[in-house]
Amino acid sequence: MIRTNNRSADALRPLSIETNVNKYAEGSCLICCGDTKVLCTASAEEKVPGWLKNTGSGWVTAEYGMLPRATGQRVDREAKKGQSGRTQEIQRLIGRALRAGVDLKALDGFCIKVDCDVIQADGGTRTASITGGFIALYLACHHLIQTGKLTKSPITAFVAAVSVGIIHGIPMLDLDYKEDSTAGVDANFVMTDAGKLVEIQGTAEHQAFSRDELNTLLDLAQKGIGELIAKQKNILEG
Amino acid sequence: MIRTNNRSADALRPLSIETNVNKYAEGSCLICCGDTKVLCTASAEEKVPGWLKNTGSGWVTAEYGMLPRATGQRVDREAKKGQSGRTQEIQRLIGRALRAGVDLKALDGFCIKVDCDVIQADGGTRTASITGGFIALYLACHHLIQTGKLTKSPITAFVAAVSVGIIHGIPMLDLDYKEDSTAGVDANFVMTDAGKLVEIQGTAEHQAFSRDELNTLLDLAQKGIGELIAKQKNILEG
Amino acid sequence: MIRTNNRSADALRPLSIETNVNKYAEGSCLICCGDTKVLCTASAEEKVPGWLKNTGSGWVTAEYGMLPRATGQRVDREAKKGQSGRTQEIQRLIGRALRAGVDLKALDGFCIKVDCDVIQADGGTRTASITGGFIALYLACHHLIQTGKLTKSPITAFVAAVSVGIIHGIPMLDLDYKEDSTAGVDANFVMTDAGKLVEIQGTAEHQAFSRDELNTLLDLAQKGIGELIAKQKNILEG
Amino acid sequence: MIRTNNRSADALRPLSIETNVNKYAEGSCLICCGDTKVLCTASAEEKVPGWLKNTGSGWVTAEYGMLPRATGQRVDREAKKGQSGRTQEIQRLIGRALRAGVDLKALDGFCIKVDCDVIQADGGTRTASITGGFIALYLACHHLIQTGKLTKSPITAFVAAVSVGIIHGIPMLDLDYKEDSTAGVDANFVMTDAGKLVEIQGTAEHQAFSRDELNTLLDLAQKGIGELIAKQKNILEG
Amino acid sequence: MIRTNNRSADALRPLSIETNVNKYAEGSCLICCGDTKVLCTASAEEKVPGWLKNTGSGWVTAEYGMLPRATGQRVDREAKKGQSGRTQEIQRLIGRALRAGVDLKALDGFCIKVDCDVIQADGGTRTASITGGFIALYLACHHLIQTGKLTKSPITAFVAAVSVGIIHGIPMLDLDYKEDSTAGVDANFVMTDAGKLVEIQGTAEHQAFSRDELNTLLDLAQKGIGELIAKQKNILEG
Amino acid sequence: MIRTNNRSADALRPLSIETNVNKYAEGSCLICCGDTKVLCTASAEEKVPGWLKNTGSGWVTAEYGMLPRATGQRVDREAKKGQSGRTQEIQRLIGRALRAGVDLKALDGFCIKVDCDVIQADGGTRTASITGGFIALYLACHHLIQTGKLTKSPITAFVAAVSVGIIHGIPMLDLDYKEDSTAGVDANFVMTDAGKLVEIQGTAEHQAFSRDELNTLLDLAQKGIGELIAKQKNILEG
Repeated sequence: MIRTNNRSADALRPLSIETNVNKYAEGSCLICCGDTKVLCTASAEEKVPGWLKNTGSGWVTAEYGMLPRATGQRVDREAKKGQSGRTQEIQRLIGRALRAGVDLKALDGFCIKVDCDVIQADGGTRTASITGGFIALYLACHHLIQTGKLTKSPITAFVAAVSVGIIHGIPMLDLDYKEDSTAGVDANFVMTDAGKLVEIQGTAEHQAFSRDELNTLLDLAQKGIGELIAKQKNILEG
Repeated sequence: MIRTNNRSADALRPLSIETNVNKYAEGSCLICCGDTKVLCTASAEEKVPGWLKNTGSGWVTAEYGMLPRATGQRVDREAKKGQSGRTQEIQRLIGRALRAGVDLKALDGFCIKVDCDVIQADGGTRTASITGGFIALYLACHHLIQTGKLTKSPITAFVAAVSVGIIHGIPMLDLDYKEDSTAGVDANFVMTDAGKLVEIQGTAEHQAFSRDELNTLLDLAQKGIGELIAKQKNILEG
Repeated sequence: MIRTNNRSADALRPLSIETNVNKYAEGSCLICCGDTKVLCTASAEEKVPGWLKNTGSGWVTAEYGMLPRATGQRVDREAKKGQSGRTQEIQRLIGRALRAGVDLKALDGFCIKVDCDVIQADGGTRTASITGGFIALYLACHHLIQTGKLTKSPITAFVAAVSVGIIHGIPMLDLDYKEDSTAGVDANFVMTDAGKLVEIQGTAEHQAFSRDELNTLLDLAQKGIGELIAKQKNILEG
Repeated sequence: MIRTNNRSADALRPLSIETNVNKYAEGSCLICCGDTKVLCTASAEEKVPGWLKNTGSGWVTAEYGMLPRATGQRVDREAKKGQSGRTQEIQRLIGRALRAGVDLKALDGFCIKVDCDVIQADGGTRTASITGGFIALYLACHHLIQTGKLTKSPITAFVAAVSVGIIHGIPMLDLDYKEDSTAGVDANFVMTDAGKLVEIQGTAEHQAFSRDELNTLLDLAQKGIGELIAKQKNILEG
Repeated sequence: MIRTNNRSADALRPLSIETNVNKYAEGSCLICCGDTKVLCTASAEEKVPGWLKNTGSGWVTAEYGMLPRATGQRVDREAKKGQSGRTQEIQRLIGRALRAGVDLKALDGFCIKVDCDVIQADGGTRTASITGGFIALYLACHHLIQTGKLTKSPITAFVAAVSVGIIHGIPMLDLDYKEDSTAGVDANFVMTDAGKLVEIQGTAEHQAFSRDELNTLLDLAQKGIGELIAKQKNILEG
Repeated sequence: MIRTNNRSADALRPLSIETNVNKYAEGSCLICCGDTKVLCTASAEEKVPGWLKNTGSGWVTAEYGMLPRATGQRVDREAKKGQSGRTQEIQRLIGRALRAGVDLKALDGFCIKVDCDVIQADGGTRTASITGGFIALYLACHHLIQTGKLTKSPITAFVAAVSVGIIHGIPMLDLDYKEDSTAGVDANFVMTDAGKLVEIQGTAEHQAFSRDELNTLLDLAQKGIGELIAKQKNILEG
């Protein structure tokens, strides 16, 4: 089994991140992981959800969407049929993952909404959304500092995510759509720049997996996330 | 009153159109009219809506959407709240406009869905969607010919659209959002490359207008649409 | 081509307007344009929408509906399936058109909702709704004056609307359903008693149209709207 | 306690029924019970619901709606907010009541939908809908015979309905809205021309009631329904 | 025709009521009428609906649901498709019936929501919900007294309900599902411990019924409800 | 920190499983894990979803719901407001987990729907649903064999699930609601009787966690799931 462009089993797809792609958003980027392209915008509002009022805490939340022809076959527009269970599950995951890198107390009075819209999908859209969404979030926090609304950044850790899987018995990093479709085990990991786990999700699509296999997948993910966070730091902190 | 970049009253905003921006869609483009950016994809399916079966006719339809932070203030995602009346009105307009350039009989057996998703909005999103959507549609028809599914193009006319308005008494072409907000009269025209009208829509926001004023607006629109169609032809027929 | 009852190409259908047909509404009428019958009620509430609070402005809005068997074939009830895009587009048009005849500042503190419910449909339901809705609105304003809630009328202009079209090459006024179905061009115009345009909407159903044809249609519409407004004035100011 | 127009406790409100008020419907009438006005149309379709296919049985069903300003205070349009529980309960009642007068086997292959739309409401809208809906249904059946689609009428009994109540201890027939609002007991009865009960619904709004009181209410209802059916027969069978 | 377990025509099904089956609810019970099992919980909140604020009155309301496999054939989950008209009609009935046993003034400041969820259905689910819902409601009121939130019970009467019907000409008490499906007349009665009627609902499914038959049904219902209320009193007041 | 009933950190809560609690379902059980009580029914239908037709495969799916007062504070009924993202996420998880124990080819022609309805919630409702849902599924498969519809069981593995978490630094098994609310890390594991992983889900609620901590949690889960599967086997295979 040969991966596209002779990619090795433990290699990420080509990665590009363009920041400030939206003239209105407080933070934004376009992240491309291979042919997966996600537009991430972070919108900061000086207002917290009702249930957080007077708690001394701000909030970070995320929404996820996919354009109808982001995929090989056009899918119906969610604005017409409502958000699917899959969409809701993904956006809840993105929100939880991003909050793991933020001190919400330090964001008191503000809500940052991170929109991750998939322009083109080729596997790994939820992990690309987390990695790119973190950049938009970071930039929005920076914007709040520069405009004098916050005095210090609420960011406490860098957060990125990657998918891994076992295909025909071989553990592989950063699956594209074709690989994902044939994977027997499919997992997503979210980690911080300190190498800690934020979120783990793994599913045996066709075959249950052993704890040894899980450890191999974790090794792969740790390597990939390390590279993703290096790129985030390079872009944001130069 | 001075327009951004000293644009004259009868000048279009800077226009750029990039084609084939989506690896799956049969036709696609990213159209930028000033800061308004719309991603247009045309998806061809070998299947017509139920009510057209056995009528010897194909179909062209359009859908329109706006990313939540396409605008200065973030708006709620339509996937969560359903499509607004404004969205439905706009996508019905785009579909009607595009069909005016197509011989539906020559498209028998096929339905082409044109998705116009606004990545960034600065006025004129519906007219940019028509101008860009036509390009995606044209390319999808070309794809059907090249893959042997159609023998000749169902395209019968080039179609483009532009907005015009009267601001502080001065008729102006191709309004941006700030201009549109202060316009007393606001109109959108869709025309063919033969200079014929396909759709006219004009609204007196603050003041009713005379037939003379309508004629001046039509003159402006005709000039702008001529330039837009020249660009379409340059890109598509080079 | 002969019109029903030998109507000439530039003649309106028989018109009747009965006022005060609802014992609760502040203003109401039943307007019959040929076999098209629309019940219009204007409900005045001493309360403005949230976004208008403390702006010194009142509001006028409209809603449109069609009884299930208003048409030749029964259509599903919108209360069961939700308002269609067409319905929303029409009621937005009616609202905009009516506001063109009102000084909203002079209506400060009040919201008038005009309901236009089609009892029987035979073409031109949206234009009949505007012409009849204006009467209901006028009567509701009068009621607010008589009950001492307003000191002067916020009405600044009479507003009426009519449809025109080109059928087999012949421009015609006030199309019925059968005519509308075969029209190559179909347009609706809204004008004031000063002969100014409030709203123009024209669609090439089967053939694009020239500016000369547009001018002929405007002439016809101007004649018809003149007659409609004369009738409105006769009824309201007798 | 004096009733409007000195009506006696056992008297119906003034009743008028105008038939064939809709040019498209197979059967229709406008029924006015005092100030309650309901437009009833019966639409016959040569098609039965899926669950009745090949059972040798036709179907009769009903839908109910109220125009937004049918009432003293305008209520939100159900097309915008969906049908309320009350609306669904009422239309299920109307459908059951009308089916009691029909041999569904004799209607094999047809579905008749009876729409009851309240133009103006002053109490007793559901019972007026049944009494008027039966007339529309009867006329539609007659239409099916006259057009050769049925050979004999599926109508097996006349059906009408009336409300009764106990107000300040006094049983009264055919309550108007003001009376209904103060009634301690409120009941609706549906009966056939043979004096049999089709549907009984009674609610103790403020006070439970005895079986003696129930019998008095039944006496009143029987008298009123007798008069309603006499009117139906006079109109339909002259 | 022989009833299950040789039950006589005027006998209730085996009845069991287990109280306090939910550790959170202020009042709860599981009521089993034959194979019909309904879980009833009463939730007391120190808050009234908006329209009752400052009226000196509390509120009691009910909701009804059925688990998907409560019935012989699994039915779609209402959480996925929305509440049916039948469900809404039933829960409105339960709420009205329960309020007949409560002095709402004495419940000022509180809203008690009674949830009746059918675990298994075999006919008579709405009447079992009323009989069991009353017990949950009574216990919740008792809880409010014991926790010092109320000083005296707002309960003014015991309320219970039962179904009756005519099957092959024989009036029968407390129908199970199979009996209910073949009944020509089907009625539900709600009564108080004083023998007064709270709610009557009767429907001629296949045949209209006479007042004599109605009286026989009332006799049966009165007997059954007497037994149900005796059981309620035994459980609640020992 | 002392657990309820002095439970040790690696102990399950008291577990009880009652089978065949529903007279209609092909398989059913009531599972109680401490105060968490879930009613599981498996409904077998001889019909597969459209997208599986003629693929030689059957299907297993799950739905999840919670009664309004299953929790300390009553929550709004999902039948009124629609299924939340959380509910959809949980029922997708349950379905995936159960399918891991089934050879879908051996279930060709059948769809088994497993409904998991939470009667009372005290933490771990999704894992109890999986453990109990498997029992209902197993029983339904057994029923298909006994009724001659299948010749051999499609069950290929026993599947059970448990939650684990880190509370104040201490890894604990099978969290109740209070524990879950204070957990810094919260994870759910699904495993087979062969000790293989089917699904892993872990979230750092307040603090990211190390791979060592993950391993400790996996050890705990493996112990708990072993005990749960022993109980399943005891009940089903005695």
